[in-house]
Amino acid sequence: MSNSKIFNNIGVTGKPGSQAALETMRLLCDQLASPARTIYVPQRHQDEIHTPGIKLVKFEELGQCCDLVIVVGGDGSLLKTARELVDSQVPLLGINRGHLGFLTDIRPTELESRIPPILEGHYTLEKRFLLKAEIYRQDEKIGESCALNDVVLYPGEIARMIAFELYMDNQFVYSQRSDGLIVSTPTGSTAYALSGGGPIMAPETDSMVLVPMFPHTLTSRPIAVNRQRIIDIVVSETNPHHPQLSCDGQVIISLMPGDRIRIEQYPIKIQLVHPLDYDYFEVLRSKLNWGQKL
Amino acid sequence: MSNSKIFNNIGVTGKPGSQAALETMRLLCDQLASPARTIYVPQRHQDEIHTPGIKLVKFEELGQCCDLVIVVGGDGSLLKTARELVDSQVPLLGINRGHLGFLTDIRPTELESRIPPILEGHYTLEKRFLLKAEIYRQDEKIGESCALNDVVLYPGEIARMIAFELYMDNQFVYSQRSDGLIVSTPTGSTAYALSGGGPIMAPETDSMVLVPMFPHTLTSRPIAVNRQRIIDIVVSETNPHHPQLSCDGQVIISLMPGDRIRIEQYPIKIQLVHPLDYDYFEVLRSKLNWGQKL
Amino acid sequence: MSNSKIFNNIGVTGKPGSQAALETMRLLCDQLASPARTIYVPQRHQDEIHTPGIKLVKFEELGQCCDLVIVVGGDGSLLKTARELVDSQVPLLGINRGHLGFLTDIRPTELESRIPPILEGHYTLEKRFLLKAEIYRQDEKIGESCALNDVVLYPGEIARMIAFELYMDNQFVYSQRSDGLIVSTPTGSTAYALSGGGPIMAPETDSMVLVPMFPHTLTSRPIAVNRQRIIDIVVSETNPHHPQLSCDGQVIISLMPGDRIRIEQYPIKIQLVHPLDYDYFEVLRSKLNWGQKL
Amino acid sequence: MSNSKIFNNIGVTGKPGSQAALETMRLLCDQLASPARTIYVPQRHQDEIHTPGIKLVKFEELGQCCDLVIVVGGDGSLLKTARELVDSQVPLLGINRGHLGFLTDIRPTELESRIPPILEGHYTLEKRFLLKAEIYRQDEKIGESCALNDVVLYPGEIARMIAFELYMDNQFVYSQRSDGLIVSTPTGSTAYALSGGGPIMAPETDSMVLVPMFPHTLTSRPIAVNRQRIIDIVVSETNPHHPQLSCDGQVIISLMPGDRIRIEQYPIKIQLVHPLDYDYFEVLRSKLNWGQKL
Repeated sequence: MSNSKIFNNIGVTGKPGSQAALETMRLLCDQLASPARTIYVPQRHQDEIHTPGIKLVKFEELGQCCDLVIVVGGDGSLLKTARELVDSQVPLLGINRGHLGFLTDIRPTELESRIPPILEGHYTLEKRFLLKAEIYRQDEKIGESCALNDVVLYPGEIARMIAFELYMDNQFVYSQRSDGLIVSTPTGSTAYALSGGGPIMAPETDSMVLVPMFPHTLTSRPIAVNRQRIIDIVVSETNPHHPQLSCDGQVIISLMPGDRIRIEQYPIKIQLVHPLDYDYFEVLRSKLNWGQKL
Repeated sequence: MSNSKIFNNIGVTGKPGSQAALETMRLLCDQLASPARTIYVPQRHQDEIHTPGIKLVKFEELGQCCDLVIVVGGDGSLLKTARELVDSQVPLLGINRGHLGFLTDIRPTELESRIPPILEGHYTLEKRFLLKAEIYRQDEKIGESCALNDVVLYPGEIARMIAFELYMDNQFVYSQRSDGLIVSTPTGSTAYALSGGGPIMAPETDSMVLVPMFPHTLTSRPIAVNRQRIIDIVVSETNPHHPQLSCDGQVIISLMPGDRIRIEQYPIKIQLVHPLDYDYFEVLRSKLNWGQKL
Repeated sequence: MSNSKIFNNIGVTGKPGSQAALETMRLLCDQLASPARTIYVPQRHQDEIHTPGIKLVKFEELGQCCDLVIVVGGDGSLLKTARELVDSQVPLLGINRGHLGFLTDIRPTELESRIPPILEGHYTLEKRFLLKAEIYRQDEKIGESCALNDVVLYPGEIARMIAFELYMDNQFVYSQRSDGLIVSTPTGSTAYALSGGGPIMAPETDSMVLVPMFPHTLTSRPIAVNRQRIIDIVVSETNPHHPQLSCDGQVIISLMPGDRIRIEQYPIKIQLVHPLDYDYFEVLRSKLNWGQKL
Repeated sequence: MSNSKIFNNIGVTGKPGSQAALETMRLLCDQLASPARTIYVPQRHQDEIHTPGIKLVKFEELGQCCDLVIVVGGDGSLLKTARELVDSQVPLLGINRGHLGFLTDIRPTELESRIPPILEGHYTLEKRFLLKAEIYRQDEKIGESCALNDVVLYPGEIARMIAFELYMDNQFVYSQRSDGLIVSTPTGSTAYALSGGGPIMAPETDSMVLVPMFPHTLTSRPIAVNRQRIIDIVVSETNPHHPQLSCDGQVIISLMPGDRIRIEQYPIKIQLVHPLDYDYFEVLRSKLNWGQKL
């Protein structure tokens, strides 16, 4: 499944404030520099990266300028870049400078051996869907964000359960009193949802999985549904506290009793670039210490 | 989504040996009898059902004769009928005479109100995929069956773990020592797989879910994959016992060390007939005691 | 196991602000009133309860005045009263005006049939231990509380894990990154800890159970230890947020990185009064919908 | 807690049929041989171990002859020796030649450094309780065994649930339809019960834990009770199959519908000898990959 497109306009971005990421970005820019290519770097690095010939652009412009954006950092950096550049449809490649990552395929020590084949067209593209979360208060939209991993409903105060109703495609599913609800993509199924007892959803399942958090009822279980479903979570009017909503654990929105959260797939998918030998099960195996061949 | 096809050739079958099922079958035959319709009943009921005009046929011929087969019994009866008639593509409708069923929509007390609208074309058809399990010994196929709920690998002796390797699409996934493995369809995800900690998979997810049984390693988790995956389970050569394989908990095949079990989707789907007000979430809600509207 | 002590000095308290509780308290006071007994009611009810002869006292004095305190409300009210009156060693009896309670044995409709036998000495006493939580900052104690159900360590911000170390009897147990940790008594094992996947601990086990919340590592499991263990949780110095500690979900204490939480059994146990036919397993069975006799 | 008793009469036994265990037993006998000590070895090793001066005895006599028995093998070997020698009250020390063991403290490479201090009295003794399982058929006892890890009720046929009732101290607890029930000691709580979702029970909790296996009802949960409880499991009369009972996964007893299994603590405890630096939590940490100090 090698892909013939060659990458010549390459963005290099990384985890803000991380010296380790910066160091790898410098090495990468030096390595990539060539008359045949243009390297784009966000303006915030203008005093930090000095490779001759690189172009400084606003972060938001990376998607327009580049046909590949390389992200140096952990899964969090890749998630953030994905949310911000998804509309441009630019493919992303992750270089891992965080904890062992599910999304960042390449180690900093492998730049020289692994990056050039990719730039020359030896890679696979994988599409992953994102979620869109919209908040409605008395039928008026008051907030909106997107997430590549998960949208999570949290209590507004610790030690206080949320009462809410869940709907799918306008059909009532259940009411629940719990610490909240995780709505996860397959990408997010190996992140927070897994800690909460959710299943691993292989990327090709194209499903969302809903994982109840500390549900008051013992019969609440994770449920996977098609990504075309439209999910509505209605916070009970009698809820005395102000629940909160997070997208990928980073964007936080405060809610009111009676608010409705609509979650559905985002209309555009993100494209991840993988080396040709990328193996999803090998990533799981090494992260989760699964058994090797007998 | 009302479907315009009217059913005129109707099979009526039920749980063998169940007086309760037989009683409902009799009522149903009497109710259905009409010059406009032909009612087919398996030969084994020839001394038990006396409705004038019914036709006795071999069970296997029901699929060919009928454009609808009504199954009276529990989920087990419907599963069995589905496995046996799937190739004929005849739609199935379940009437519940077992424990509260996930697959049998209609109660025996509702025959008069709920069956006629369906026969007149007011119903929905839902396709559900089945699994095919083939056993290979030294590359020769020695057995084969299909399952609407699940294919389960069990130990051959109690208190003995199985060591096996799992492959998907010929890619190695993991080796595991455990009490076995459940490979479930969405239909089976509310059955045995749920008892084993698996997620609920809504029918439209079109995925298989693999649930490890009492795994020796605490990091083994349920994993959902697309139904187009081809799964191979290779029983370790050093396994001292003879594991067993079940399909829907009914068909049992004995295995040898070194055997390979290939599991993939069955090429033909079964069609379930539902009343127009069928609501998958309502079934879950009532079976699992989920919360009602606030 | 009938207990011969007769109760003559009886406190009646209830859930503040609850009309339902107040109504039951009034009925109860009227029913209890007798020349042979003294009824004590917290001062806050002076305009609400008018039974002739009742004595108004400060809530804190109930323990000294009474040889039995009857609590009208849900489990939360009983937990609160237990924490506040434990030092006085006065026995408590719960009348349920909340959700179906684990701790409140008597229904409001049963006052006339169930209370008199208890007052006349037909009851059992059950001792339950509480936890004491102390917070140390640079070896100085800065806070302290007690809990009958559980002490819970929460993140200071949503979607942020806590890193902490756990010690028992000054022996290092593990470090963990998670959403927090529940330390529960047997009494609390059917409350929040159960939602988090903890086991049910019968009251006589006299053990604490530690339940990790959404642990980052899949091998973290609930662990039960003797109540004589001394538990220290040390919040990592590098923790960027301010975790919070709750006792029975009600007392909240804010923590700093580096703080140490010491949890051990409280030196005094609370005494619960049960009717003679009290059956712990029957309470579990009805609350958890367990199977009845075959 | 160093214990002053010096061991002079030492049994050496090991996993039958294991060359690795035999090799370590030989080394150990050679190392232990001294005029001041008597070494006892089971007769089955008479052609295999040639250390001058060792005494061959029947396995069952080891308990009478020795004041310490050293077991070379995995946890299974130690469990078996414990069941067989428990009545003699002889202390056991495990040397690990199996998978990483919870019960075998000493590695084969550590014989010279770790064994001599123990023989000279530098060790701790830890008592662990066992379970006794008795089978009653129409009130007649038809079988009996004991277990250091667990007593497990299994289905007699795969894919068939068992219906049974559970009693504690003659009080009805619940009826259940499931694949069976694990009744575990704290020692067994890190073995099969852990795979089934049970909690870790520290040895000092002195409790039994009951873990339902694939229960039909989602509200069934592990429950810990005091070891003084008397547990009765009554197999339903209507159970069509013959369930089986295992003790430590090794002794297997076949049951009939209507049989009653009585499980209670065995009247004598086994004594485990540990090196002075033995640390239960360190064993858990290394086996379960728990986090090290931050």
